[in-house]
Amino acid sequence: MATIRDVSKLANVSVATVSRVINQSGYVNEVTEKAVRQAMETLSYVPSDMARSLAGKKSATIALIVPDILNPFFPELARAVEDAAHQLGYTVILCNSDHDPEKERNYFGMLKNKRIDGIIVASYTIHPQQLLELQRQSIAAVVIDNHFPSHPILALQSKNREGAVMAVRHLLDRGCTTIAHISGPLEILPSRERLLGYELVMREHGMFAPSLIAEGDFHVEGGYRAMQELLKLHPDIDGVFAGNDLMAIGALKALYIAGKAVPQDVKLIGFDGIALATVVPELSTIAQPIAEMGKLATHYLMRQIRNEPVECKTHELDVRLLVRQSTTD
Amino acid sequence: MATIRDVSKLANVSVATVSRVINQSGYVNEVTEKAVRQAMETLSYVPSDMARSLAGKKSATIALIVPDILNPFFPELARAVEDAAHQLGYTVILCNSDHDPEKERNYFGMLKNKRIDGIIVASYTIHPQQLLELQRQSIAAVVIDNHFPSHPILALQSKNREGAVMAVRHLLDRGCTTIAHISGPLEILPSRERLLGYELVMREHGMFAPSLIAEGDFHVEGGYRAMQELLKLHPDIDGVFAGNDLMAIGALKALYIAGKAVPQDVKLIGFDGIALATVVPELSTIAQPIAEMGKLATHYLMRQIRNEPVECKTHELDVRLLVRQSTTD
Repeated sequence: MATIRDVSKLANVSVATVSRVINQSGYVNEVTEKAVRQAMETLSYVPSDMARSLAGKKSATIALIVPDILNPFFPELARAVEDAAHQLGYTVILCNSDHDPEKERNYFGMLKNKRIDGIIVASYTIHPQQLLELQRQSIAAVVIDNHFPSHPILALQSKNREGAVMAVRHLLDRGCTTIAHISGPLEILPSRERLLGYELVMREHGMFAPSLIAEGDFHVEGGYRAMQELLKLHPDIDGVFAGNDLMAIGALKALYIAGKAVPQDVKLIGFDGIALATVVPELSTIAQPIAEMGKLATHYLMRQIRNEPVECKTHELDVRLLVRQSTTD
Repeated sequence: MATIRDVSKLANVSVATVSRVINQSGYVNEVTEKAVRQAMETLSYVPSDMARSLAGKKSATIALIVPDILNPFFPELARAVEDAAHQLGYTVILCNSDHDPEKERNYFGMLKNKRIDGIIVASYTIHPQQLLELQRQSIAAVVIDNHFPSHPILALQSKNREGAVMAVRHLLDRGCTTIAHISGPLEILPSRERLLGYELVMREHGMFAPSLIAEGDFHVEGGYRAMQELLKLHPDIDGVFAGNDLMAIGALKALYIAGKAVPQDVKLIGFDGIALATVVPELSTIAQPIAEMGKLATHYLMRQIRNEPVECKTHELDVRLLVRQSTTD
């Protein structure tokens, strides 16, 4: 077993110099550094930190997989995760999966090779088997915006259905009678949950009609197009619940172009509570505790990494109604 | 020097099993995996990949330091960097520096310990000495939105001053005569460059007055407050050049509240070209090639990592005027 002394002898430098190279502290000239590294390689010398990492211990790195950091929900989440991780001396690798299972698999392979300690997955396409496989390899995992009730997987989720119910009730309270819903992509769990909440209240009031629902894409563009479709079928729409704030911004634009004033002619509410919903008029929304969710996910992940007990179930977070200009005459 | 055969003997398993543990491929039961890792640790065995990494070779990880991922400019940059890196088999560590030199130093220490290959720094507080120090430790570095002409540091920057000139000329072309500027924080180079471009054109036309300038914070809130201040001093303002799109959105809100119609009473233009500038009315802006900048930065970084020749100077990228509703009657 090679020691730091063997390396210093072979490289013909002091032990202190080898230590400086290993710890990358203080000045070492390039030629010396090269010689030291060469000697380390020749002797297969492993500094103790590295030896520990080789033995499968912690790398103090976690990964965050999001569908697309361009959706403003995810920078807010990423910021909270990174802040919480940084406080504990961890760094965060960011991955954009684009809802592409192939790309996701590819990331998992790369991340395993880097011996990361844990992964927070905000992905709708993930399979529970992939997460269990990670856990078998001692990589902790927390899921956001998805849940696998029949597997021992820790998940975090906002109360999407309850939030949708609050949004539609708020529009009813404001006197709306023809309320449309722009849903997110329906293969995504939170989209379905929000749609169900909408449907529930609409049926309760005998107002439900499938043609009042249009599917969007969680982006501005999709909200814009969905709103245009809805206005063609129902020019008398006086309330809109958009499945997220970005689509609400798109809907706002379509309403503006159609000559409908918000909130006078049409009341509009979104979902998420992203900071950028401060457009004119300001958007009412159902706010998710995004920062709280990122912080909690990181803390649960750390508990798993430290082998502390956690409840591997779906933890649900409260949402709240933010009433702003888009629903207030 | 321990070999994989020594490890397999000590752990009393086959070489294939040791290999599966090292490469984290295929199924190995927990007890066996533990025994193998114990044997590796005892023998200080280094698999060849790891040995290479110990000898200072590549970890296939780069870092991106941004001030704050919540500013929509940075997710667009991060997305482009991550896409380009991912294509080359690299992962990206995301760091938020909050313009805090202490936090930055802390990150540099952590990143060095992780043996990352390179850093892209979109930070205004960074000192050239810190970058040169990284380079001495064979960590490649590229700077965005800053430049150090007297040091061998590769930097990428949009043509900020030219962009500001284009913005103000556009407002003049639209008939504006009292043109205000909401600047970014003036300790930040791009803010100063944009201010200089504004001042240049205003002086050319004998329209310059220091009281037409208010400093913002690159966020919606700062733009909002700056616009309110400016309106108090100059109720007759008919054109506004905001130093970025977020502040333009804040200014839009302040103008709306003050009863000023955009673009009829006041014409407004931003800077950046973030996707979210699609508010109502849509913002005219000076678009930076954000995605192109991220991609280029990653490519220049990779060239440095591979020891290929690159020109360690400031590379300037073209900006373009996007005329939208906020300056079009």
